[in-house]
This record gives sequence, C-alpha cells and structure tokens, in this order.
Amino acid sequence: MTTATLVPECVPPPRSGASPRTARGYASGKDDYLRRLRKIEGQVRGLQKMIESDTWCPDVVTQVASATRALQEVAVGLLNDHLRHCVHDAARNSGTGGDAALAEVAATIRQVARL
Amino acid sequence: MTTATLVPECVPPPRSGASPRTARGYASGKDDYLRRLRKIEGQVRGLQKMIESDTWCPDVVTQVASATRALQEVAVGLLNDHLRHCVHDAARNSGTGGDAALAEVAATIRQVARL
Amino acid sequence: MTTATLVPECVPPPRSGASPRTARGYASGKDDYLRRLRKIEGQVRGLQKMIESDTWCPDVVTQVASATRALQEVAVGLLNDHLRHCVHDAARNSGTGGDAALAEVAATIRQVARL
Amino acid sequence: MTTATLVPECVPPPRSGASPRTARGYASGKDDYLRRLRKIEGQVRGLQKMIESDTWCPDVVTQVASATRALQEVAVGLLNDHLRHCVHDAARNSGTGGDAALAEVAATIRQVARL
Repeated sequence: MTTATLVPECVPPPRSGASPRTARGYASGKDDYLRRLRKIEGQVRGLQKMIESDTWCPDVVTQVASATRALQEVAVGLLNDHLRHCVHDAARNSGTGGDAALAEVAATIRQVARL
Repeated sequence: MTTATLVPECVPPPRSGASPRTARGYASGKDDYLRRLRKIEGQVRGLQKMIESDTWCPDVVTQVASATRALQEVAVGLLNDHLRHCVHDAARNSGTGGDAALAEVAATIRQVARL
Repeated sequence: MTTATLVPECVPPPRSGASPRTARGYASGKDDYLRRLRKIEGQVRGLQKMIESDTWCPDVVTQVASATRALQEVAVGLLNDHLRHCVHDAARNSGTGGDAALAEVAATIRQVARL
Repeated sequence: MTTATLVPECVPPPRSGASPRTARGYASGKDDYLRRLRKIEGQVRGLQKMIESDTWCPDVVTQVASATRALQEVAVGLLNDHLRHCVHDAARNSGTGGDAALAEVAATIRQVARL
C-alpha cells in the first residue's frame, strides 16, 4: 500500500463542484441501506392509502412514528459508517483536513440530534 | 341537528373489528396531507439514488434529516386535527368515552415526543 | 352548576399582565411533578460532579440522556393534564376561546415534538 | 514522546473497576460545561417554582423545552469533544482498541439521537 494512492475519505470534498460529492464510506452496506429505504418508501405509500381511506388519526400517527424511527436509524447508521472511515483515515493519514472533517461530523451530529 | 345523529368522532373506534378504524378528522386537509406524503415519498426515492451513486455521507444525512422533519410535521398536524375534533365533540357530547379518547391522545403524544 | 362561576381553564390567560399566568390544571399532580423535578435537579448536580472528576465522556452522555428523557416526560405529562382540562372545559363551556386554546396547544405540541 | 506514555484516550476504560472511568477529553472546556450545567440546574429549580405557583401549563412546557434543549446541547458537545480525541488518538496510535471505541461512540450517538 502506498501513501500516494490513499483516498483520504474523511476529508470533506469541495462543495463548489458541478458534480455531487461522493464517497465510498458505506459501500459495504449499500444494499442494506437500499433495502431499508425501499421499505420506508413503502411505508410512506401506505400512509397515503391510510389517509385516502380516512383511517383513524392516532393509527396514522403510529405508522408515521414508525417510518420516522426507521429513517432516523438510517441516519445514525450512515453517520457511524462515516465515523469509522474518519478514524481509520486519521490513523493512516494524520493531519490532512482533520479539522474540516470533524467540523462536518459535528454539524451532522447536530442534525441527527435535531438541534 | 339532533343528538341522535352525532358521530362522536373523538371516541376511539373498537380495534377488534375486521375493517380498519376510520374517522373523518382530517377530511378537510386530506389533499394537503396526500401532497406532503407524496413529496416525502419522492425524498425517500431520492435518498436511494444518493446511496446508489455513493453520495458523501453527511450530505445523505442532511437529506434524511429533512425527510424525518417533514414526517414529524405530518404527525403533529394529524394530532392537532384530532384534538380539534376531540374538543368539539366533548363540547357537543359530554361524557361519552372522554377518558378513553384522552388516554389514546396521551399515547399518541408520547409517540410524537419519541418517548 | 351555573355558567357564571365556571372557570374556563382552557382559555389562555392574557400575556400582557404584570403577574404570571396561572392555572390549576395540574394541581392534583403538583406534588408528583415537584418530586420529579427535584430528582432531575439532583441529576444535573450529579452531572457537574461527573465533569469535575473527569468522567469518561460516553458515561456522562448516558446520564445527560437520562435527565433529558425525564424532562421530556414532565413536558408530556403537563401537556396531557392541560388537554384533559381543555376537553372538559369545552364540554362545559362550548365556544369560549376554543380556537385560541387549540392554537396554544398546537404550539405546545410542536415544542414537545421538537419541531 | 514515547509510545509507552501515550494515553489512548479513545479506548474505553474497563467498566468493571471500583473507581469510575475517567478521561480528559473535555478538560479544556470543563469550565464551560460546568457553567452551562449550573444554568440548567437553575432552570430546573425555576420549573419547581412555576409548578408551586400554579403557572399556566403551556408556559411551563416552554421552559421545560428550553432546559431539554440546553441538556441536549451539552450531550452533543461532549460527544464531539470525544470524537475529536478518538480521531487524534487513532492517528497517533492506530489499531489500539479502535473497534471497541467506535462501538461505544455508536451507542452514544444512538442515545443522542434518542433511538
């Protein structure tokens, strides 16, 4: 392994580019995230059917809460995958953009904590 | 209007029936809820595209947080619609199942507060 | 029962007065709320001792989460006590300030849902 | 600096010991955390006075929400301080207990996200 080919994944890519920022942080669990998101999409479609058929409000809220929790689990999973790479990258590649990476992680944690 | 035709909407319908429990509590805002849920469904599909194209984790989390907030707004809206009917029904039809209705509202609020 | 002596507890008192707004909504459970708040106060003092003695961060966060949950339970309890009175007042005293009361309840629910 | 004197702060100390687990992760911000926690303690005492003087429920809930948010900010601050040390330690001291440290961080994030 040569240092030159290291991709310092934890360094936030620039925002200004035309193309979206990419990373391979969750590549290993990609199928699992897609499966979970498809299930959540189905839950949101189910909510529309509940509203269309005038389902009793508290029963709808219970299903909304379930979808909300599933989304929050996805967010926390992604954040943890990201941290795993941050720490590994820091171990291999100390000093490169560590502060910017941690500032971005801090902002992401605030979103997950809903502050 | 005679008392006999009153539908005490705030009294929770029985759970044991074969058909789902229905209510007309949010009927007036039905189209609005459907519109918002379709938008959330689109957000969840967008999340799948982000994962498929290896989008940078914190950017995905930002979008997950946005969908979560939109769902939470739907839950709070439904809960408030429900309460409006509870209070009106209580005013018209005092003493009918009020305690069961309030116990169900309390459980629904706990879900919205994520306790 | 005479309408004249009714205290429409669910109608929000005016904010402009010099004295704080009062209500008797949670009077029956007052001692219980005080007991819970004293316990939370003790938890917050315990957190200060943890910080002073350099306790391991994740262990402090666990205790912060416990105090946060206890506070959230107090908020939900107060909200439910309030609703119980709203519904009863509406039943006794239909048409008095119901909309203002429900708008205030809606704002309170948003706080509890942290939106 | 020799490896022997390194304090791998991000490696969770054992739970089994008689003494509490300690760390210096937030040492620099210790006074700030203590100041914030004393303010929260004052808020919780203020809540008791509100209950004692029968303050209008929604006004109490507003103050509870404010204290809850302040506590949540403390939790997120502590978590971020902890992560900063994790990443630095990983950079200096790769391979030591990284997985245990990250598993503990993941559990802590779940608490902050209230899952």
